[in-house]
Amino acid sequence: MQHGNKRILIIGGVAGGASCAARLRRLCERCEIVVIDKGEHVSFANCGLPYFVGDVIKEEQKLLVANPELFQNRFNIQVRVRHQATSINRTDNTVSITNLEDGSVTEMRYDALVLSTGSEAIRPPLEGIDLPGIYVLRTIPDSHKLKAAAKNAKRAVIIGGGFIGLEMAENLAGLGLEVTLIEMAKQLMPPLDAEMASYIKTCLEDNKIQLKLGCAVEAFSRTTEGLSVHYSDGHHVNTDIVLLAIGVTPASELAKQAGLEVGPRGGIKVDETMQTSDPDIWAVGDVVEVEDFISKQKLSVPLAGPANRQGRIAAGAILESFNPAIKRNLTFRGVQGTAVCQVFGLTIALSGASEKSLRRAGIDDYQKVYLHPGHHVSYFPGAQPIHLKLIYARDGKILGVQAIGRAGVTRRVDVIAMAIQMGATVYDLEESELCYAPQFGGAKDPVNLAGMIAANNLRHDLDLADWHLLHDDGHQLLDVRTDSEYQQGYIDDAINIPLEQLRQRLDELSADKELWLVCGVGQRAYYAVRLLMQQGFKVRVLSGGMQTYQAFANAGLLEAKNA
Amino acid sequence: MQHGNKRILIIGGVAGGASCAARLRRLCERCEIVVIDKGEHVSFANCGLPYFVGDVIKEEQKLLVANPELFQNRFNIQVRVRHQATSINRTDNTVSITNLEDGSVTEMRYDALVLSTGSEAIRPPLEGIDLPGIYVLRTIPDSHKLKAAAKNAKRAVIIGGGFIGLEMAENLAGLGLEVTLIEMAKQLMPPLDAEMASYIKTCLEDNKIQLKLGCAVEAFSRTTEGLSVHYSDGHHVNTDIVLLAIGVTPASELAKQAGLEVGPRGGIKVDETMQTSDPDIWAVGDVVEVEDFISKQKLSVPLAGPANRQGRIAAGAILESFNPAIKRNLTFRGVQGTAVCQVFGLTIALSGASEKSLRRAGIDDYQKVYLHPGHHVSYFPGAQPIHLKLIYARDGKILGVQAIGRAGVTRRVDVIAMAIQMGATVYDLEESELCYAPQFGGAKDPVNLAGMIAANNLRHDLDLADWHLLHDDGHQLLDVRTDSEYQQGYIDDAINIPLEQLRQRLDELSADKELWLVCGVGQRAYYAVRLLMQQGFKVRVLSGGMQTYQAFANAGLLEAKNA
Repeated sequence: MQHGNKRILIIGGVAGGASCAARLRRLCERCEIVVIDKGEHVSFANCGLPYFVGDVIKEEQKLLVANPELFQNRFNIQVRVRHQATSINRTDNTVSITNLEDGSVTEMRYDALVLSTGSEAIRPPLEGIDLPGIYVLRTIPDSHKLKAAAKNAKRAVIIGGGFIGLEMAENLAGLGLEVTLIEMAKQLMPPLDAEMASYIKTCLEDNKIQLKLGCAVEAFSRTTEGLSVHYSDGHHVNTDIVLLAIGVTPASELAKQAGLEVGPRGGIKVDETMQTSDPDIWAVGDVVEVEDFISKQKLSVPLAGPANRQGRIAAGAILESFNPAIKRNLTFRGVQGTAVCQVFGLTIALSGASEKSLRRAGIDDYQKVYLHPGHHVSYFPGAQPIHLKLIYARDGKILGVQAIGRAGVTRRVDVIAMAIQMGATVYDLEESELCYAPQFGGAKDPVNLAGMIAANNLRHDLDLADWHLLHDDGHQLLDVRTDSEYQQGYIDDAINIPLEQLRQRLDELSADKELWLVCGVGQRAYYAVRLLMQQGFKVRVLSGGMQTYQAFANAGLLEAKNA
Repeated sequence: MQHGNKRILIIGGVAGGASCAARLRRLCERCEIVVIDKGEHVSFANCGLPYFVGDVIKEEQKLLVANPELFQNRFNIQVRVRHQATSINRTDNTVSITNLEDGSVTEMRYDALVLSTGSEAIRPPLEGIDLPGIYVLRTIPDSHKLKAAAKNAKRAVIIGGGFIGLEMAENLAGLGLEVTLIEMAKQLMPPLDAEMASYIKTCLEDNKIQLKLGCAVEAFSRTTEGLSVHYSDGHHVNTDIVLLAIGVTPASELAKQAGLEVGPRGGIKVDETMQTSDPDIWAVGDVVEVEDFISKQKLSVPLAGPANRQGRIAAGAILESFNPAIKRNLTFRGVQGTAVCQVFGLTIALSGASEKSLRRAGIDDYQKVYLHPGHHVSYFPGAQPIHLKLIYARDGKILGVQAIGRAGVTRRVDVIAMAIQMGATVYDLEESELCYAPQFGGAKDPVNLAGMIAANNLRHDLDLADWHLLHDDGHQLLDVRTDSEYQQGYIDDAINIPLEQLRQRLDELSADKELWLVCGVGQRAYYAVRLLMQQGFKVRVLSGGMQTYQAFANAGLLEAKNA
């Protein structure tokens, strides 16, 4: 696979670009490979920036994954930082490149071009957006500015409750700042469903983060009290610094100018080998439009893992384009949206579809269960609950998982991510054989339990009630917890017959109304459902019990009259 | 699914039996369900016993998963502890049961019988084996005896280096005892391959456990210096207590006496619904013979997870046998052998086949790679290496994984366990989308890396050398680490050309001999292989680099002349 006279030009180093470059060299020793980046650094660890600002990562040096010298010496790859591509001439396969140090412009010919231009922080055109004290966090220089500002600040406002917003809330609070977090949506962490996101809300409140959910920012101004952040409802908050963490948008300007096909949200259109609408141009990373593995919707995802995979795939495809005889046979299978975030010791992880993303894609024929198992057996000290939501199709195929807890969360989400990748069903989860020792799980792992509950549902051993219809008429709520548990708080209108007394007290129940069963986490209600179904009652379980009730209530999704 | 006049008798409560009983009740409200157990407890957490002895779990109460009252009140299941089944009369479907409290004998009729008699600790017929001071650990009463003895002891000898032996080494050392661990095999943790087990050896030695590997015990005697344990080589060690942790054997005596079919190793033969050779008798748990999911060999596994799954499956099958119209359609898919053990903070986990188990099954057409990635990115504080071995077939199908480290081990093994369950290939691992944030992994997770290295191998981008042939002739060892790394220790006869100088120093290499490349963990050697292959050299990588070299050397598997 030797292409001595071919030049591959890669625009943008981080993640996808650097992976592509290194992979190209491994596959082809003689190609000429050039990487340009408008920033000061090629291949830095942008996921580490919040922790560098928060002084968890102490040395900037640690964030520099590779430098131009390493690329040159190890891979014979030319890297030019502070060089910006300003236009692509697709007729003669050249790129105009401006040296940002001296302003000089050169034209560089390419045989293959890779666009890895990434994404840009969204900066809404609000009044006062350019005032000093308003920061974004995308690059190492950004992090230095923010870190310096935080050192002299007492108060910070973070706008945006997604990954970066949450990580920065923890890190700025860790530096001693009073933090206010503003999110336009009514929930934190938009990729999650709202009831699951409510656990994060509780956690942030416990850690003294001021939260403003469902709150739009309208303007910024400078007053004697510092920087004022004005809400659309007329209120405002004063602060020393503002971090914009609203999200990112594909940096596809160069591609658009060159006439490459771009999707409605700005992502460059690529095929499964990452080739753009120009057969000599490939694109990888945040800048491309990809397909969601489950919903088949088009989207752009700013995630390092997919960017790396895309870089590798593009490298193979480029060499194939030079010599079609050599088949690498790698294609991008789409994104699953596996992601994780940690905030104040709480881990939030997800993979596959949420109810939200399914509904956006017009898919409504799915089921879901909630459970709250310990991350290991309760008899071993230190067990922590995992709040888990599993979404699946009626044929059993797993569609998505969301999980939140203080331990063991990524492990379960990763196992289910692998299951989703392989097209597994809830029946497969039921039969999984996972690591078990008392400090590591249970003989029935949370993954097994999720599968069992879902499989019970699909086998019609367990019908599920809809939490959203909790306070509708037409059903009788039956709480099967102990009397003392019930007395500590119950759902309005729920009657109480403890599971252990149920067989003896069947005559207290009417067979006319459907019974909706609730207990602590769902287990006893399931036992009661089995008992009652076989006695001819119409019964459903409120999945996840009072724990799930609390999550829905905290998210404001129920018109709770009581509890 | 109502069978009002049917009685199901379950012999043995722990794990499989209790799961089966509870599942039966959920599926059938009106069956009569009776569980008898010769011990004092039904359904206790036997996996917790080492930690109860070690005072990590402080209260016995915590180990009691369920008591007879709970079974009665919650499930309407009759439980009789201290009742032993002494014979099965298969002609008239009855079991003779002795009440161990008063010696009375009753005959109980069954419509379906479930044998969940578990396994027994192996007690080899050695001289002095019945001396006071020699213990086993299978039940709660066992644990009380051992705990009391440990309190008055200064020295302990553990015989057997498997799961229980390792857990007890940690727990007895934690109580302040001087611990000697004796294992007949030349390695600890027999399910692992020897080079992987060497990490455990190093860890135990670091924690001052005296190790005697490849050492058979011949006899015990009592002297003025305490209890003496005599080795077959004539030496002996004095101790206060001995724990036999040699392993377990299926407790299938009752089944054998009843003429049920039993495998060569004593496990009851069952079909995929856990039915024995008698259509009215089922068997679950440690007592049955199961099929290895990968090697298809028959074996018995004393693991709680499979026992639970089997209990559920048997319950469905029994009800189907009463009423064939009702199909539960659950079958046991075999065991993968997923297991985990923690000792002194080191986690050892595995799933699927080892090289040993493949060779036992006559399978030799497999490949393997070693890697040593951090459990999360190195730039985030606290990264710990995971030593991982992946075994796969030539078509890419994953056969097994073994991993050892201080963090993140169960997560990766569980992901690969799910992959194995689903018949995934190394190419699927390459493309997995797993949780990534700096404190949780890398943009390329260790699972991805394992898949990439294996896929590189299968795509012929990376040929592997055989560590066992390291010191044979016919190849030239080339170490591509830096000069200073090399000076700190290298493999005998290895020449050194740092990766960064390789392109300039190709003329120092001879194309006559195959080059075997080594570096720190394998990454730089891979880069060098790609470079050299394209220059026409014949090259192979010593997978996992000097880290793997050390593991093989520590296991005594190399005739190391140097390093």
